[in-house]
Amino acid sequence: MTAPQTVDLLIEARWVIPVEPHGTVLDAHAVAVDDDRIVAILPIAEARRRFEPRERAELTEHALIPGLVNAHVHNPMALMRGLADDVPFAVWLQERIWPAEARVMGPEFVRDGIELAIAEMIRGGTTCCNENYFFPDVQAATYRRHGFRARVGLPVIEFPTAWARSRDEYFDKALAVHDDLRDDALIGTAFAPHAPYTVSDESFERIHLLSDQLDLPVHLHLHETAGEISDSLRDHGMRPFARIKQIGLVNERLIAVHMTQLTDAEIAECATRGVSIVHNVESNMKLLSGFCPAEKIRRAGVNLALGTDGCASNNDLDLFGEMRSVALVGKLIANDAAALDAASVLRAATYGSARAMGWSERIGTIEVGKQADLAAVRLDAIETQPVYNVISQLVYAAGRHQVSDVWIAGVRKLRDRVLGGFDLVELLERTRRWRDRIATA
Amino acid sequence: MTAPQTVDLLIEARWVIPVEPHGTVLDAHAVAVDDDRIVAILPIAEARRRFEPRERAELTEHALIPGLVNAHVHNPMALMRGLADDVPFAVWLQERIWPAEARVMGPEFVRDGIELAIAEMIRGGTTCCNENYFFPDVQAATYRRHGFRARVGLPVIEFPTAWARSRDEYFDKALAVHDDLRDDALIGTAFAPHAPYTVSDESFERIHLLSDQLDLPVHLHLHETAGEISDSLRDHGMRPFARIKQIGLVNERLIAVHMTQLTDAEIAECATRGVSIVHNVESNMKLLSGFCPAEKIRRAGVNLALGTDGCASNNDLDLFGEMRSVALVGKLIANDAAALDAASVLRAATYGSARAMGWSERIGTIEVGKQADLAAVRLDAIETQPVYNVISQLVYAAGRHQVSDVWIAGVRKLRDRVLGGFDLVELLERTRRWRDRIATA
Repeated sequence: MTAPQTVDLLIEARWVIPVEPHGTVLDAHAVAVDDDRIVAILPIAEARRRFEPRERAELTEHALIPGLVNAHVHNPMALMRGLADDVPFAVWLQERIWPAEARVMGPEFVRDGIELAIAEMIRGGTTCCNENYFFPDVQAATYRRHGFRARVGLPVIEFPTAWARSRDEYFDKALAVHDDLRDDALIGTAFAPHAPYTVSDESFERIHLLSDQLDLPVHLHLHETAGEISDSLRDHGMRPFARIKQIGLVNERLIAVHMTQLTDAEIAECATRGVSIVHNVESNMKLLSGFCPAEKIRRAGVNLALGTDGCASNNDLDLFGEMRSVALVGKLIANDAAALDAASVLRAATYGSARAMGWSERIGTIEVGKQADLAAVRLDAIETQPVYNVISQLVYAAGRHQVSDVWIAGVRKLRDRVLGGFDLVELLERTRRWRDRIATA
Repeated sequence: MTAPQTVDLLIEARWVIPVEPHGTVLDAHAVAVDDDRIVAILPIAEARRRFEPRERAELTEHALIPGLVNAHVHNPMALMRGLADDVPFAVWLQERIWPAEARVMGPEFVRDGIELAIAEMIRGGTTCCNENYFFPDVQAATYRRHGFRARVGLPVIEFPTAWARSRDEYFDKALAVHDDLRDDALIGTAFAPHAPYTVSDESFERIHLLSDQLDLPVHLHLHETAGEISDSLRDHGMRPFARIKQIGLVNERLIAVHMTQLTDAEIAECATRGVSIVHNVESNMKLLSGFCPAEKIRRAGVNLALGTDGCASNNDLDLFGEMRSVALVGKLIANDAAALDAASVLRAATYGSARAMGWSERIGTIEVGKQADLAAVRLDAIETQPVYNVISQLVYAAGRHQVSDVWIAGVRKLRDRVLGGFDLVELLERTRRWRDRIATA
């Protein structure tokens, strides 16, 4: 008999849902964590013999899942939650959001919005996000300060903003930010060209070259609305997908966000070329952007990821609510009650989103060797009893407030609902100041 | 200057949303309650001068709304939450639900399921429901014991069940239950013929006569699926709506549940004849029943109510989640981003549902003279800040766990998230015993 192995943390859970193998529920299992990594997944009884943990978490009524991954956010816009609801996309963007952004855009707005968002994400079991906004330097510093895993978007758009004035400046700044973050354990970068209708072929070509050279994902709003397609046919004589394919961007690095307009040929091409599609079902409904055929995409073998989009169009960063909407609306769209079943939706919100971000080797499932990004969901509330099928319960009944504990890279961020690393009183005061500034300007 | 008036309760809220007038948000208002009724709604400062309350609730970060009304539930099925997910309606009903029900149906199952549901409803801001199940005597006793407002359904179906063996027995028992409840302050009854495909013309005719005579609502699953329509055309030579209209049941007493299949003429007729339609959007998506054109209905002047349906097809009794789904999916179905705006959806979940149940004089809005059925929602959480539009925040961002306090007929049921009237440990143990019995039978 060998002596027990010392590890930093042993999490003993009523259920462990590793996501890989698909649909598996491990009863009364433990996850051993050392430093930032998962070192074992095994029955609790066996774990107690094999490991001597420095800290033990006993989660007797909980399901332990991989931390959720939000594959598309504009988190500074958490400060604009509910600023413009029940209006069409064009009014929303041009009359409400852009003017408000113009008034407040800058490093402080980005920092404060992201801090509010990080607090919300952690409390909701989300441990990683794919950020898409201006000031990626501030984004990175903010996520890093809170030990939150993220890819920050290196924005490219063909008009001047508070972040950069010219195409060259966008690229120069992008490369500088990327350089600064080269060896960061938690923070990565991605190119984030805004959309086909706001980015030129020339910029897309530069992005193509650089993303190949630096092995960086390209995080792009694509085929968000029908209008985007018709405008592109008018202006470029082809659909946006064809246009960026011609430039060489349709490959395994492409994170294609929205994709509400898709031909069967385009879906097949996404499958063949390893494109990931990020489904943002609540935002798409709220702004009436269209609906992404998520089940069809999934069945075609395309990697399906989930995102909430920004808080101005959702109005939350709640991936539990999003999973439920994906499963329910997915059935309506696919005309199939078995479409987007609970296990497949949970997979999309974890492994699928991680893979979209190029991080499926690192996070997205509970597997030995992966980073210990974990969330525990307490299921003994009235609202989630009785339990027949744990994965179903997570998707169809649990609320994000039932997330009790969260770890990122082995570091506890939420302990029995208490959030570490934040002065919440100060954060709320700051948030209210932004509100007054945004609402009255 | 007159002496202050003594009242039982003064609720001072950051915002009061009375629902009537539509869309109104009253800043820093108070609601004065005496016995079971609302006696005044006025600015806090003025309320402090005018009233001497026996109890004061200071809700400095809360929106006070009318208690939500769930216009269609099968609450004993709370014990079957998540028993059968991601399967088509026919498999769900015939292979999963009916066999499980056959094993457990009886007064204890009804009582225990409803107790679980009442706890869930109160914790989620719901103060009234329209029950549709067997054993209405047990239903009534259970709701009354917990001081929860409900109409219990008097079931009629053309086959024997544990409740009744013959048509005459269904009617005899229905009338006996109705008689027992005649003067109950909180509990009423409604006829609950199961559906056109399980109830004969003869029974519908008896219901027509009796509902007129006793002035009782008729709570009926109607046009739930396309299959129901085609079967009716085959068997009766007409659509179910036409069939029950011929019998005389299409009138202001009809609570038509689901209505996923509707012609423009049927919608117009519902408007003219004062029919209420109960929209159950999450259940309809989950079981792929179809989709109810809720915005079209509303614009045609039909009273729109909301329900969650039973926990086996939702899988919760969360009217906050349901409101969000109604607003989001409603935009998709109506092809209009302004459809089912937040204020209209909140109205459907309160006034609309109350009116469907024949109780719009009594509940559904915060107005002087109405019953004090109230729910307070705390909005100072990270997840619901900042606040630009209170009603929007309730529908698009708030979770039901943010409900802090609930009153029914002036009696406090939830106090700062603590639920009165329940031994939750015992309730959960009982729930788990049912689970074991249902899962393994």
